Amino acid sequence: MLNSVTDALRAELTSKLPEAAFRELTDAYLHEPRGRYHGGDGFLVAPDCTRDVALVVRACAAAGVGIIPYGGGTGLVGGQVLESGPVPVILSLERMTKIRDVFPNENVLVAEAGTILASVQDAAEAVNRVFPLSLASEGSARIGGNLSTNAGGVNVLRYGNARDLCVGLEAVLPDGAILNGLSRLKKNNTGYDLRHLMIGAEGTLGIITAASLKLFPKPAGEGAALMVVPDPQAALDLLTLAGDLLGHQVSAFELINHMGLDFLGEVGPDVRVPFEQAPEWMVLIDVGCVAGVEPSQALERLFEAGAERGLVSDGVIAQSGAQREAFWTIRESIPEANRRIGSVSSHDTSVPVGRIPEFIDRAGKALARVDDFRINCFGHVGDGNLHYNVFPQKGKSRADHDHQRAEVKRIVHDLAVEMGGSFSAEHGIGRLKVDDLNRYGDPTKLAAMRAIKAALDPKGIMNPGAVVTG
Amino acid sequence: MLNSVTDALRAELTSKLPEAAFRELTDAYLHEPRGRYHGGDGFLVAPDCTRDVALVVRACAAAGVGIIPYGGGTGLVGGQVLESGPVPVILSLERMTKIRDVFPNENVLVAEAGTILASVQDAAEAVNRVFPLSLASEGSARIGGNLSTNAGGVNVLRYGNARDLCVGLEAVLPDGAILNGLSRLKKNNTGYDLRHLMIGAEGTLGIITAASLKLFPKPAGEGAALMVVPDPQAALDLLTLAGDLLGHQVSAFELINHMGLDFLGEVGPDVRVPFEQAPEWMVLIDVGCVAGVEPSQALERLFEAGAERGLVSDGVIAQSGAQREAFWTIRESIPEANRRIGSVSSHDTSVPVGRIPEFIDRAGKALARVDDFRINCFGHVGDGNLHYNVFPQKGKSRADHDHQRAEVKRIVHDLAVEMGGSFSAEHGIGRLKVDDLNRYGDPTKLAAMRAIKAALDPKGIMNPGAVVTG
Repeated sequence: MLNSVTDALRAELTSKLPEAAFRELTDAYLHEPRGRYHGGDGFLVAPDCTRDVALVVRACAAAGVGIIPYGGGTGLVGGQVLESGPVPVILSLERMTKIRDVFPNENVLVAEAGTILASVQDAAEAVNRVFPLSLASEGSARIGGNLSTNAGGVNVLRYGNARDLCVGLEAVLPDGAILNGLSRLKKNNTGYDLRHLMIGAEGTLGIITAASLKLFPKPAGEGAALMVVPDPQAALDLLTLAGDLLGHQVSAFELINHMGLDFLGEVGPDVRVPFEQAPEWMVLIDVGCVAGVEPSQALERLFEAGAERGLVSDGVIAQSGAQREAFWTIRESIPEANRRIGSVSSHDTSVPVGRIPEFIDRAGKALARVDDFRINCFGHVGDGNLHYNVFPQKGKSRADHDHQRAEVKRIVHDLAVEMGGSFSAEHGIGRLKVDDLNRYGDPTKLAAMRAIKAALDPKGIMNPGAVVTG
Repeated sequence: MLNSVTDALRAELTSKLPEAAFRELTDAYLHEPRGRYHGGDGFLVAPDCTRDVALVVRACAAAGVGIIPYGGGTGLVGGQVLESGPVPVILSLERMTKIRDVFPNENVLVAEAGTILASVQDAAEAVNRVFPLSLASEGSARIGGNLSTNAGGVNVLRYGNARDLCVGLEAVLPDGAILNGLSRLKKNNTGYDLRHLMIGAEGTLGIITAASLKLFPKPAGEGAALMVVPDPQAALDLLTLAGDLLGHQVSAFELINHMGLDFLGEVGPDVRVPFEQAPEWMVLIDVGCVAGVEPSQALERLFEAGAERGLVSDGVIAQSGAQREAFWTIRESIPEANRRIGSVSSHDTSVPVGRIPEFIDRAGKALARVDDFRINCFGHVGDGNLHYNVFPQKGKSRADHDHQRAEVKRIVHDLAVEMGGSFSAEHGIGRLKVDDLNRYGDPTKLAAMRAIKAALDPKGIMNPGAVVTG
């Protein structure tokens, strides 16, 4: 059992850390984007160096006080918010924002955990490189949180998840010891890979304080197209065709359903779709090409080959960077439209890529037996990762379906897992999906997770209540 | 303390497993390629399914008997051989060689752990895909061992290490429980990543029994070139230039020193180098290009741009697949020539890519103070991974330097680690480098490794004596 922050602990930290490390616990630290959780009390500390993070952790370990690691606060599963229980220390990384080093010739950049994701991208851009992790909240998400949650985003198809973009890690473990793993080696087979254990652990095994990140040469040219496909199976076949024709030059392959476009028309944001009629299904294809391959010509060839096979019926290829941006604005406005409509239940599912059409079909039929919903199913089809979100019909509200929420969620998650998929593709477990993890997780995996948690954090101070319980 | 295999355990296993699982413990199982270790006694079992692997592990756990997991036996650090101590069960994966599934459109293949690496490559080829893990011993190494040791090889620059090529894992943990992680999902953020913990653990946390592996579209065209560079710094600058001009189409970038060519001339194998005079330094560049980019033209452009900058002085671009093969034969014959010469000490070092020239310079000078050696420094320069091998002068033998071996090794490893590098880039720890790990490893990492080992394998039955000790 953990203790609440005591006056003695406050006094100890106040005496040992500079004044700048202490700030008011405003409501911003206690909210999360979807408004499901509201944090209780906490003692907010924002150290500006790894040594001070370690000092805080050691003090909390000695006092048996829980620690909530806090990055950009953009997580969608409540991993950054503790609602009740013994009052914790909220440890914010917001003052650790240095880019410590950039090695353009090695394609490596070393950033502190509090660096805003967009700033990491900018630092890469400044040396003519790409840091490809990209997601809607990149203007406020911090890289330490991105790594702790193994963030996904729109470029996973080509560049992988956050874990694939990290070559080294510095972290403070639950006993306050500093893990010095900030190497920039591409090969280093010297014992267990603690980096990958920390990544995705959502702050339950320690606090990431800095990371060596992979950069990539910039593509010689970039382009995008919107292509209308008859159905999800055609989208998949087009994806395979794109792989055959363009190889790894395909950066993103996003599926968009007409429901998302309807929502945009209904509640905004106001965006323009370049087709006379909003198509039932379309894909946004983004490419980054090597020298000698002209992006719009490559997309043209893909369109022609797709049309020949009956996989695409219409399409627009961006003729400028601005038009490419406009295509992406459509895709990236959909989550905001979803929020304005208000979902009955949202699901961050993945299934094996080849089973996506079957999943969409079966989930739709199963939910129709519950009620008459509007379904906006969209997302990273190239990764098998669909945001499968269920909404009330026009004129109804999410509250009208409160009694069905649990059933809806269960149907979608049961189906995804039955089909070899996941109930949390990229958002993680946090506090929201702890029950799902305990329900759907492999028992051997759960037992091993608990054993590891107990071994590294015997007092259970790191992000208590998140991910691992019991 | 572990127990030796007892008659009761033999009887139990014999009664529960089919007769085909038992075979004679020939000398082949007790050797390793470099002849440093020779195994003691053992009870050899080769189950043909995961269930039977679990049965063996459970029986050993109950009896407190150690298990040596055995793949292809090609490891270079003695991880597959136990020399002395209580007699273990040697658990060979050689009968688990099924390709369970191939999903060409998802670019995923599911193979059992005993599948020979070359067979995995062939199964990918059969569906017009590439499984890019490639190394000298691919004709006998097994994929489970490749994953357990996080094998590297020649294509890491482009495709990553073995761990980067695995999307899911099935394994038997030290208590005999089966970890069902054989998903083929590209995104699945549901708790700690045990896959990456098992990969690189060298059989000390359990036994990998099957894996979901990543496939890639085949490049539209492939090519290779040998280019003569004035020095290692020029090789690095050429690598950066190649990245700028060709992007991710560069599959391999290997540095070759004249010493390797001298050795080939001296002791064979007999290979032809296409330059009148063996160059002091040359690089082997291999490319796999997208449609629209002709490999030999792309290499030509790289050569010209390199020559303009003074980075290359001569070069040959392969004009056929056979010539490309011939270039690779040079590179791949060097380890055999090394063996025939007989090294004083071999080192699998890595340093940050940008510091390679400094490392070569400083290591050479430091060793010259010990004795007059011949140094063959070659390897995966694109990964910062140099095989830095030290040989006697002609007319002397490795035995003449026996008294210097420890000092030589210490000098090379000290320098690599001091420069932010590794004393084991791709071969792992096994038994050979346990002392190095304890010497050079981050104390926080070592403590965490021991805690994890104790949590998952409290009796210490899994590959005792390898990787983690104390």
